[in-house]
Amino acid sequence: MQFTSSIVEKAVESLSGFPGIGKRTALRLVMYLLKRPETEVSVLAQSLMKLKTELHLCEKCCNVSDTPVCAICSNPMRQSDIICVVEDFSDQMAIESTSQFLGQYHILGGLISPMDGIGPDDLSILKLVERVSQNQIAEIILALSATVEGDTTMYYIAKKLQHLPVKITCIARGIAVGGEIEYADEITLGRSLIQRTHYSI
Amino acid sequence: MQFTSSIVEKAVESLSGFPGIGKRTALRLVMYLLKRPETEVSVLAQSLMKLKTELHLCEKCCNVSDTPVCAICSNPMRQSDIICVVEDFSDQMAIESTSQFLGQYHILGGLISPMDGIGPDDLSILKLVERVSQNQIAEIILALSATVEGDTTMYYIAKKLQHLPVKITCIARGIAVGGEIEYADEITLGRSLIQRTHYSI
Repeated sequence: MQFTSSIVEKAVESLSGFPGIGKRTALRLVMYLLKRPETEVSVLAQSLMKLKTELHLCEKCCNVSDTPVCAICSNPMRQSDIICVVEDFSDQMAIESTSQFLGQYHILGGLISPMDGIGPDDLSILKLVERVSQNQIAEIILALSATVEGDTTMYYIAKKLQHLPVKITCIARGIAVGGEIEYADEITLGRSLIQRTHYSI
Repeated sequence: MQFTSSIVEKAVESLSGFPGIGKRTALRLVMYLLKRPETEVSVLAQSLMKLKTELHLCEKCCNVSDTPVCAICSNPMRQSDIICVVEDFSDQMAIESTSQFLGQYHILGGLISPMDGIGPDDLSILKLVERVSQNQIAEIILALSATVEGDTTMYYIAKKLQHLPVKITCIARGIAVGGEIEYADEITLGRSLIQRTHYSI
């Protein structure tokens, strides 16, 4: 690409750093911004900066928050003795949108992945162990992705918590609601058989 | 989506204003930014702001430029008596990358499109007419998209320039290089027959 303006070139370069956005898409985004009023672009630039300057990580659960302790951790209506462990805040939002969980969360900030150079110390696992040992926690629900990284992280956390008097559970793996048995892969189907539940009318 | 942080929510909202970026993609981009160092996000935010605060439109051709007159218009090696009229700077970049054009450009800033509320006065057509009447211009090449809007704009510009002593040409419409006749639509194929050129060995 031959740019007539270094300002445009730099904006395209910055935007194409995003995952899934190439140079052509970045150029389209820049052209869109050029047509928008200055106030709108200013709001966008400021809101991106605020992500780094004003955003807190909740002292208790490590979730993103506007305040030192997040809205969920400081909500007295939520059960404080049951903690759902998730990879990041998008998973927390996904679980929250089910309206099936009324406890608190713990955000790991990733999964153990030696391939990507992420070890247990890069995550908030130590903080979780401290939280469980210093508070009356009845149950830890491990709600991590059903991948190698997710399984490794679950195993590591369970090992770290095994000496503490806390019940450790893991979300069910099985056929998705609406899914057909014919198209389910054999590992999922096998798991759903092993973990079969009592059918009540 | 239920956000635990209004800062994250605002960033997602701002990013999902981009064309082709929905809330889920915006959330992914925000999560990516949260993991990047502050300097990188700052560079991004600043480069977006500079698009509105520091970017010029070239006085001659209306192209984006760091300086009052763009690099192409101020380049003495470029033919100044031949102007290629394009819709926007991404089209200009596409033509520039062919290395087949050594004249100057004129960027319209859009196409006449009554459906989108864009009339001739919203574009730099008047500036083009002034430029042609005040300078020694031998040829105007209309390099606009082969759409209804492109055709309308070309017709309008040609009408506006018809009283001036300038040759008006239009880029060829025909079978794309590498394209097979079998799969070409009939209008394109018809045009390519009408505008057939002498085959020289």
